Amino acid sequence: MKDESIQPGLFDDDGTSADKPSSPTRKKAGGGGGATAEQMAKRQREISVSEFFTKNRHLLGFDSPRKALLTAVKEAVDNSLDACEEARILPEVLVEISKVEGHENHFTVAIEDNGPGIVKAQVPNIFGKLLYGSKFHRLRQSRGQQGIGISAAGMYGQLTTGQPIRVWSRTSRRAKAHRFTIRIDTSKNNPVATDEEVEWDKAQGTRVEIDLEGEFRRGQRSVGEFLKLVAVANPHAKISFRDPENEAVVYEAATKELPKETDEIKPHPHGVELGILQKMLQETSEKWVHLFLQKDFSRVGPKVAKEICDKAKISDRAHPKRIAREQALALKKAIDATKIMAPPTSCIAPIGEDGILAGLKKEVEADFYTATTRAPVVYRGHPFQIEVGIAYGRPGDTLDVSESGKIFEDAEKKKRRKKLAEEDLLAEADQPARLIRYANRVPLLFQQSACAVTKAVIQTNWRGYGMQQPRGGLPVGPMVVFVHMASVWVPFTSESKEAIAHYDEIIKELKLALQECGRKLGTHIRKGKKLSGEFKKRNYISTYIPHIGEALQEILGLTDGKRDECVENLTEVLERSRKI
Amino acid sequence: MKDESIQPGLFDDDGTSADKPSSPTRKKAGGGGGATAEQMAKRQREISVSEFFTKNRHLLGFDSPRKALLTAVKEAVDNSLDACEEARILPEVLVEISKVEGHENHFTVAIEDNGPGIVKAQVPNIFGKLLYGSKFHRLRQSRGQQGIGISAAGMYGQLTTGQPIRVWSRTSRRAKAHRFTIRIDTSKNNPVATDEEVEWDKAQGTRVEIDLEGEFRRGQRSVGEFLKLVAVANPHAKISFRDPENEAVVYEAATKELPKETDEIKPHPHGVELGILQKMLQETSEKWVHLFLQKDFSRVGPKVAKEICDKAKISDRAHPKRIAREQALALKKAIDATKIMAPPTSCIAPIGEDGILAGLKKEVEADFYTATTRAPVVYRGHPFQIEVGIAYGRPGDTLDVSESGKIFEDAEKKKRRKKLAEEDLLAEADQPARLIRYANRVPLLFQQSACAVTKAVIQTNWRGYGMQQPRGGLPVGPMVVFVHMASVWVPFTSESKEAIAHYDEIIKELKLALQECGRKLGTHIRKGKKLSGEFKKRNYISTYIPHIGEALQEILGLTDGKRDECVENLTEVLERSRKI
Repeated sequence: MKDESIQPGLFDDDGTSADKPSSPTRKKAGGGGGATAEQMAKRQREISVSEFFTKNRHLLGFDSPRKALLTAVKEAVDNSLDACEEARILPEVLVEISKVEGHENHFTVAIEDNGPGIVKAQVPNIFGKLLYGSKFHRLRQSRGQQGIGISAAGMYGQLTTGQPIRVWSRTSRRAKAHRFTIRIDTSKNNPVATDEEVEWDKAQGTRVEIDLEGEFRRGQRSVGEFLKLVAVANPHAKISFRDPENEAVVYEAATKELPKETDEIKPHPHGVELGILQKMLQETSEKWVHLFLQKDFSRVGPKVAKEICDKAKISDRAHPKRIAREQALALKKAIDATKIMAPPTSCIAPIGEDGILAGLKKEVEADFYTATTRAPVVYRGHPFQIEVGIAYGRPGDTLDVSESGKIFEDAEKKKRRKKLAEEDLLAEADQPARLIRYANRVPLLFQQSACAVTKAVIQTNWRGYGMQQPRGGLPVGPMVVFVHMASVWVPFTSESKEAIAHYDEIIKELKLALQECGRKLGTHIRKGKKLSGEFKKRNYISTYIPHIGEALQEILGLTDGKRDECVENLTEVLERSRKI
Repeated sequence: MKDESIQPGLFDDDGTSADKPSSPTRKKAGGGGGATAEQMAKRQREISVSEFFTKNRHLLGFDSPRKALLTAVKEAVDNSLDACEEARILPEVLVEISKVEGHENHFTVAIEDNGPGIVKAQVPNIFGKLLYGSKFHRLRQSRGQQGIGISAAGMYGQLTTGQPIRVWSRTSRRAKAHRFTIRIDTSKNNPVATDEEVEWDKAQGTRVEIDLEGEFRRGQRSVGEFLKLVAVANPHAKISFRDPENEAVVYEAATKELPKETDEIKPHPHGVELGILQKMLQETSEKWVHLFLQKDFSRVGPKVAKEICDKAKISDRAHPKRIAREQALALKKAIDATKIMAPPTSCIAPIGEDGILAGLKKEVEADFYTATTRAPVVYRGHPFQIEVGIAYGRPGDTLDVSESGKIFEDAEKKKRRKKLAEEDLLAEADQPARLIRYANRVPLLFQQSACAVTKAVIQTNWRGYGMQQPRGGLPVGPMVVFVHMASVWVPFTSESKEAIAHYDEIIKELKLALQECGRKLGTHIRKGKKLSGEFKKRNYISTYIPHIGEALQEILGLTDGKRDECVENLTEVLERSRKI
């Protein structure tokens, strides 16, 4: 064993150091021996949520400068799209990233929208306080759900550049625009803000500017790719992007139709847990249990409320606040034992099969497309809906059959194939399929291996659909698999919202959707294989028969005419036998 | 496209339902059209950290009843071991899980230790408030670091069973024992507690009882496995476990030596970010910058402090609170440009190579063991240390050589092999190696695929050490890979502390440690392969030579004596040629 593994010179461990003979940091916790309960008690203190996330910034997606840049853009774009849709405005979002003069790795990230703006009193809290927002307590599909994202981006900017977040907001043409600077007091998780009236040529909207330490790159998992994938799933949004090298891309809106307006729903009784039920009983403004059940839950009418109360042996006029634990437990058991209509699904807005196909066709040039939108189902009282799309095969990878039945390989297609391989989303033929994951229309770019979607794709038997698939791996081949989960509450594996947690109900639905698309893909692939088999056999005939003809001519001393006739007959016979 | 994908009968989407004709949950956000900024503002509110984690309980490891049971045990055991070690007491921890009468899936989890106890005033906050503790703000290796775990377990218990957490605590023989019941007010993230003096036959210690909805199972990722793995990495602890079926296991302490006592260190200047530096400047009690640098950081003496001030062009007697952003930026750049001794490593206590080997040998019966403890290094100012151990080969899978050089296969070993395969930690010969991961001596049982350790193992070239390894996969074979990260701050991928985040510096160290062990493994495997090759050849000789002898006897008409002589000669010649 090494001498306590101390690298000599680099570290010393004996409490002495050249320039600091009696470091105050070396004191033993409790003098000579161990610490007592009293000594330990003195160190106990509250941890502010901002301090927690400053230290754990990777939980929020700020683990590297490169990812931080993307996460900041993502959080702001999410908010812009949510606000526009809630206000029923077709979103126009502008993303600008520019370098800060004099600082190698400092960038200004600016996101501007044409949304409803934010009222003055709310701006400091929304941008300068973690765990603050309007979406957490509502059951309704939205991109943001935690009340953490944008203030975390501001906090990271402040941490790395010392600069406050800047916000412009204007709520209508009649209102004045305001400009704010906002810092977070991380010890208290509170905003420290200034604001002033300013001129702004925008009639309505919000603009956020954050200076942060970042790294700008193109390619996979870049801001550019993120916005491209946002455009795929949000054809109603116009998104413009200017990068630090002053290159600009505009994704025009492909439709003037906003996603279906979603409603806020009440919790469904079947999803409620005892502790939540007890809390709801304490906090309700209703005076009778049966009214509490009807007003505070979805899908409970007078009949169902009565049935629940009867089963629980509780008077339907009992006062909710006076229901003790044992009664609450009986109430919960009664709820679970009562048949209640599934929750309304007006709270979720899937992209739809047409929307997915349009999005895929816009951004992926492939041979075959298919899409499935599953019916909504429920996990823990939360309605959700799974959608899957598949784009398969580079044009030219499979063969076409012309109207006359002639099989040909398009030379033009062949040429395009090479070019496409370099720039599009399709995987190479010998590489794992490309998986693009979405939650509530937001692309998930990181932590693919930790995601329920990946698990479901891996657990699907793609060999059954004619694809290669290594054990425990993604299918291999020129394919894009698009997966979307729309829900009032997506259970992410971390606050950075990069992967969906492994809930059984979700994985089951994912697999069913993948199988639906997989079956259609299988039919396509089998057809392609049969055609290419035909083509190969036909090729053999035309390659070898003439040689056989010549050999026969030599052996039997045939004339050229006889030889050709022989070749023709042979070909015909073989073609006929091949067709049987 | 499907009709908006509504499963008929299961869901309806038109706002009408049989027993609830005008559901109040169906109101559109802003009347007919979209919501205005004013309407949205009314919905903005603060989210308490308890509410956040109630909804996101999977972030804390409470996603399924089975995992919840394990997580609750884990959090309590972590706290017990931390407290005992800080008080320099050899830990004796008792874990009891029992069923709650009358409730199919309710369990009482009780964890009791012989630690220092907790002073009365602190108990409610420690067990009834998320983000409260003594370990978050200290740079010192400990199992807990967030101030979330045990109160989250209590919160989950309360949520699923409605019961408060119960705590017994006694700080010394002279003090009275106290019993507490503690609930969390999740809207405020505050404890609601009762306490009373009670008789307790324990002189000192803490006992925690939580009722929760759980599922008890044996086998992989069970409480039993967790405690077994705890015992491997904590040979100084005695751990007793009684399960709901009243089966008991005791892991006796294998040593009376506590892990090296760790010191709390100050932050290292090289790890500090601008925002943190600014905050420290504001909060310091020092009046001069040079004293601030010396007192609030580790490894900064008068000389280094002066050098930093000079480089930053700041008077060393400037008042820390008056340093503006530009100056702070200059200070940070000066710090980064100054050579400063690496942080003291007295804050971390690795297990050590001997400890790892002892632990592995105790729990894994294998043919070959090796271990490496790397020297400490630093990521973002935090010292950390990586340790790796490997156990390889089931006894009997490879061959032994006796002193006389005779090669034999031990029949006894062969028999044991089959038995071991069923119960021990070694992987089957054709299965991926078993990976056991630890962070600060705590086994990590979940999210293996999301862990930096797994990434490092996959990225190590095990083929170079004579093992099979599929592309992008773990090595395949009868092997256990033990990996430990000891650090003052382990960056986990979520609050449930199940996987280590992918920081480059950490992955690099992991790979170096794996390679060190891998090389030793490679030597062993090559030796084994050579031996088994020898054995095979020797086998050929003894199998075929007699037949050749008989054939020669027949052809040449030899006597039996001549034949045997011939066989002997042949064998000798072949043996000799084989050895060249």
